[in-house]
Amino acid sequence: MPNQTSSTPFETICIIGGGLIGSSMLRAIHKHALAKTTVLFDHSEIVRERAKDLKLAHIIAPNLASAVENAQIVILAVPVGQYENIRDELKSSLSANTILSDVGSTKASFLDVFSSLETQNIHLIPAHPVAGTENSGPDSGFAELFENRWCILTPKATADTNALELIKLFWQKLGSKIEIMEAKHHDLVLAVTSHLPHLIAYNIVGTAADLEEVTQSEVIKFSAGGFRDFTRLAASDPTMWRDIFLNNKDAILEILGRFNEDLSSLAKAIRWGDGDALFELFSRTRDIRRNIIEIGQETSVPDFGRHHPKS
Amino acid sequence: MPNQTSSTPFETICIIGGGLIGSSMLRAIHKHALAKTTVLFDHSEIVRERAKDLKLAHIIAPNLASAVENAQIVILAVPVGQYENIRDELKSSLSANTILSDVGSTKASFLDVFSSLETQNIHLIPAHPVAGTENSGPDSGFAELFENRWCILTPKATADTNALELIKLFWQKLGSKIEIMEAKHHDLVLAVTSHLPHLIAYNIVGTAADLEEVTQSEVIKFSAGGFRDFTRLAASDPTMWRDIFLNNKDAILEILGRFNEDLSSLAKAIRWGDGDALFELFSRTRDIRRNIIEIGQETSVPDFGRHHPKS
Repeated sequence: MPNQTSSTPFETICIIGGGLIGSSMLRAIHKHALAKTTVLFDHSEIVRERAKDLKLAHIIAPNLASAVENAQIVILAVPVGQYENIRDELKSSLSANTILSDVGSTKASFLDVFSSLETQNIHLIPAHPVAGTENSGPDSGFAELFENRWCILTPKATADTNALELIKLFWQKLGSKIEIMEAKHHDLVLAVTSHLPHLIAYNIVGTAADLEEVTQSEVIKFSAGGFRDFTRLAASDPTMWRDIFLNNKDAILEILGRFNEDLSSLAKAIRWGDGDALFELFSRTRDIRRNIIEIGQETSVPDFGRHHPKS
Repeated sequence: MPNQTSSTPFETICIIGGGLIGSSMLRAIHKHALAKTTVLFDHSEIVRERAKDLKLAHIIAPNLASAVENAQIVILAVPVGQYENIRDELKSSLSANTILSDVGSTKASFLDVFSSLETQNIHLIPAHPVAGTENSGPDSGFAELFENRWCILTPKATADTNALELIKLFWQKLGSKIEIMEAKHHDLVLAVTSHLPHLIAYNIVGTAADLEEVTQSEVIKFSAGGFRDFTRLAASDPTMWRDIFLNNKDAILEILGRFNEDLSSLAKAIRWGDGDALFELFSRTRDIRRNIIEIGQETSVPDFGRHHPKS
């Protein structure tokens, strides 16, 4: 654990939740010496103990109330389904002028749950770093996770300007690029770029596991034909993803509706042997990947740069 | 180009098609000194010229008929939709006792198209190396592509035993593991592990590109939330994949039906807030990935071992 220095951009930063994202933020805060004091609280005693071993924060707090007292910034890094459970305790523990932020993948829900705290001068600045891996827990984090990734902030129009600037600065110091948008629009954009892909990945892996005509061992053996790509997203944290689907229901079901319409057309083209329709779609989709690579959001090496694993 | 040596396991191997798979086979044949003579024919003059520059084969033949004459083994590495177009020319050019194999992703279609050649003592041994990248063309191939990957052979029960053994040996020398199954079963297994994943990937990328409420630039910017994973498969060769969907229609539509049923249940669970059902599925799917990694068909490093690309 780095020394507590005096020339840091932030005073006390408190992270609630010591999983992949929370522990990565703490590692990055220390790497870049961003805070005078870091505090971590996690509801799990096992995680708190592990966080002590890993020296993830200056203070590993024994409870939520003591964790957040005196913090300049409190950032929630727990599944979004837990926000309601901790709201009342936060309400009675947070000092006025504290900035309350988060890293959740659904943003309208953050504002819904916590807007009652604004009456006591808590500044709400919802944030969503679009970064992660399929792994979970305090050991899986790393300081570079947010570098060259987007962090989307979704403050209300009435949000405190200084608080917004501080959270912006925080993510920039972690290496992220900032985008500001309305919470509702965020939830629709992420339904497309993150939530639907996870839903589809979970679904296809589930379908393959449940077939009678093809054994699970065949699915696993011949997964290099494409299937294995989907298993990465489908290995993501079940609690986190359950909560995302429950908290962004409308946008996800809307986008799923579009996906299903397109899939029906595609199935029809296959059934009727309409090769031109297939070729037209398959040619268009190539460009999207090229653009993602060009703006630095994806690796350009074939097969994701996978090394061929040895058996 | 390696010297033509005399102590090789094979005499003359002819590859039809100099794309990713064809050029990878040729590179591997030379690397391991498997054939006395290699011959390549590709319908595209541009590919033939490039193959000369890359020294992909001892002989770059000017036409199909001269390419296959005197070959011990002829391996088709062209989109499966081209098989019918070249059947008559092959029929009149192939000598008796030649082994005709391929690398296509649908196998019943190979036997359907070419079974008439058996009357003149051509030995049909259909093969499918379950390996590839999203790239196409003679420059994208590499000799190690087939190492530690499965190659599925789908000979008829009446197939020539020596021919089968030779094709088996060929793929083993390229580093592959061999599985033998019925063509119809192959087509069902691959519909699950390869064709459906590609169909879904093409579809989701197409859906995302066509939305009005979310711009294409937003989709591209925030693709690291999961979407970008799908763009790799959706960047695969359009001609090859059009032909696969048209040549494995029944199995793909059957598996797609299962996928759709499961997706409807999942949508219903989201709509009704059934968190337990979501959690149960999301927990099960993790195991499949663990198993794929355990048998060496996937990398175990997080995020596919992607390096964070710099913008």
